[in-house]
Amino acid sequence: MSAAAVSSELVIPSDALLKHWQGHRGLTRRVIAAFPDDQLFSFSIGGMRPFGMMAIELLSIGPPMMQGIVTGEWPQRREDVACPKEDVLRRWDEATALIDELWPRIPAGRFQETMTAFGQYPGKVHDLLLYAIDNEIHHRGEGYVYLRALGIEPPAFYDRG
Amino acid sequence: MSAAAVSSELVIPSDALLKHWQGHRGLTRRVIAAFPDDQLFSFSIGGMRPFGMMAIELLSIGPPMMQGIVTGEWPQRREDVACPKEDVLRRWDEATALIDELWPRIPAGRFQETMTAFGQYPGKVHDLLLYAIDNEIHHRGEGYVYLRALGIEPPAFYDRG
Repeated sequence: MSAAAVSSELVIPSDALLKHWQGHRGLTRRVIAAFPDDQLFSFSIGGMRPFGMMAIELLSIGPPMMQGIVTGEWPQRREDVACPKEDVLRRWDEATALIDELWPRIPAGRFQETMTAFGQYPGKVHDLLLYAIDNEIHHRGEGYVYLRALGIEPPAFYDRG
Repeated sequence: MSAAAVSSELVIPSDALLKHWQGHRGLTRRVIAAFPDDQLFSFSIGGMRPFGMMAIELLSIGPPMMQGIVTGEWPQRREDVACPKEDVLRRWDEATALIDELWPRIPAGRFQETMTAFGQYPGKVHDLLLYAIDNEIHHRGEGYVYLRALGIEPPAFYDRG
């Protein structure tokens, strides 16, 4: 069956996508919190980054991406620098509030427009947002293995409350 | 800012969501293929399942979920049983074709309806589909750590071709 047979009917509502993302972000916060303070920026498997650095990467993507989508001005991505776990969690909560604040200001029709994220990554806005969400799920999945390897049971994947 | 301020405007097209899922499925196929035959169903970290069993789980969710969404009849989920890597890849390709075949048959408006997946999991159809995609990204992220621990470089996360 060719791709041409597939409808371009719009199927996911804006408010559901925000809720979906923030549900994932709540789960990621619990994964960050589950790491012992002294392992968040040190524990690693197979030469990969510690989970804390992945969390810092997520903070350097989501909130500035929202600013870019709303305003058309893309901030420089911050350099990823380790910090105490409590600071990661505080920055996470600030990002949660910022995303909630900016989302309703996304201009009508913007989701279907093509933008170049951070001056480097062109894509439809809905795809840019899905990329940010997917990247978070991906790294969090890596974090689940770190937690299991540390003997810690991760929070349930399906719990997005 | 309250959730009530967020628009319920529809923002993601059906064809883009299919392409998004199949792009992820292509990447997951490459991750399955990257495992040595003798590690796919044996290598594990922290007491977790081998990646092959996670791939089998994904096969037991995506294709029957499509059948349920299109027909309203939800097949029993198959029991997850290990099999040779070539069989996993063959079943993966069959699922790819089935999803492409069924997607255009999703009834108009169905994405906004509530269904009970597999008789157990109620949700809007767009959320059920996102759950299946997210679950795949999550387990594949776990598979990335397994590959790194085996000294194998995983395929690039951003490559969905």
